[in-house]
Amino acid sequence: MPTLYHHPMSAASRFIRLVLSEYGFQVDFVEEQTWEMRREFLAINPAGTIPVYIDDNMRALCGATVISEFLDEVHGILKRDRRLLAEDPFHRAEIRRLTEWFLQKLEQDVTRPLVRELVHKVHMPPSLGGGAPDSKVLRTARGNVRQHMKYLSWLAGSRQWLAGDRLSYADLSAGAAVSILDYMGEIDWADLPAAKEWYQRLKSRPSFRPLLTERVRGLTPVSHYADLDF
Amino acid sequence: MPTLYHHPMSAASRFIRLVLSEYGFQVDFVEEQTWEMRREFLAINPAGTIPVYIDDNMRALCGATVISEFLDEVHGILKRDRRLLAEDPFHRAEIRRLTEWFLQKLEQDVTRPLVRELVHKVHMPPSLGGGAPDSKVLRTARGNVRQHMKYLSWLAGSRQWLAGDRLSYADLSAGAAVSILDYMGEIDWADLPAAKEWYQRLKSRPSFRPLLTERVRGLTPVSHYADLDF
Repeated sequence: MPTLYHHPMSAASRFIRLVLSEYGFQVDFVEEQTWEMRREFLAINPAGTIPVYIDDNMRALCGATVISEFLDEVHGILKRDRRLLAEDPFHRAEIRRLTEWFLQKLEQDVTRPLVRELVHKVHMPPSLGGGAPDSKVLRTARGNVRQHMKYLSWLAGSRQWLAGDRLSYADLSAGAAVSILDYMGEIDWADLPAAKEWYQRLKSRPSFRPLLTERVRGLTPVSHYADLDF
Repeated sequence: MPTLYHHPMSAASRFIRLVLSEYGFQVDFVEEQTWEMRREFLAINPAGTIPVYIDDNMRALCGATVISEFLDEVHGILKRDRRLLAEDPFHRAEIRRLTEWFLQKLEQDVTRPLVRELVHKVHMPPSLGGGAPDSKVLRTARGNVRQHMKYLSWLAGSRQWLAGDRLSYADLSAGAAVSILDYMGEIDWADLPAAKEWYQRLKSRPSFRPLLTERVRGLTPVSHYADLDF
């Protein structure tokens, strides 16, 4: 069976887990703390990033973009109306733009700093930067959450799914990041009816269930985290 | 004619310029200083990043990955042995992994901090972070150059081109970043014979010529910058 190196609080990892699940693939999971810079893991992916997908022939695919493009080329293309990338090149470009937005821009502005401060630093030795959360970093990231959620809400209010009429990588990458922020209680849903309705629809999919029942050591999710009607 | 928003010291922009040139496409160029956060530019690409490609129908493609995948789907596929992405999905994955390495990891570790400190900060107002280069940032980035060049040299020593037998996006993304670092005199070629031989071959291609004759305001390149035999 293929193996996925991942972390429960990595948006890129959650994205690939959702894609695999939507396509009905089973994989073995290995949780990787990338800040440990394990020698064996760096031998597989010199960039030291997750997710990494090892196929049945022990070939490694490194990074969410590489994995998702590969899965589309080898499997997605056969899925017809369940394909998670569009057929039209411009439509594909828009799905890729949003996927990059959620896995890179939102990641850099919000998800990575919050996860680092609130999840990883608790377990990291001081020599690697562990310790108490940096309140300035938290404040900046939390200011950015609001801007990003406004953009998501605008997208959700103007389209059925985020890159158009059908579920795509755009929704799964957005949902992956949003679910992590929501777990940590960082999203105030009160003023975001369109984004909330979109997330409710996404959250109700069977592919989302494993993410909603998973718990991270030392961090309890907000009470509504797993509620489909929050 | 299509338009490309770019900056001469942006590796991602140089990469797309090389791809367009290898495929024989002409475009109009608009130089964008992304740190200015121009309202008109943010209306085209809310992420505020370059390159952005505007096609003849005024449709925008944002970011090097989105543009390069689009160009492959619409044009590359017709180029046979001049195609810059492979046919085989695993080979494509390796080309994409390296392209991401040079445009994201090398960018983050080396290219972006050096360009910011040595090029952009000179022109930025103090309110946006302009001023003298930060010597600590320079020191860290310069330490990282050596590690990255070792990896590039290892790749160049073990393959004809960086992702295998043929020129691909991997070479053009690597060359885009290396040419910027070389312009700034940040690469010591003495101990890197394999990387040097690869870069000489790449630099000799007609697609590289416009990059080698271009000069950035206020920054003179090292004397060997445009030499094909350096």
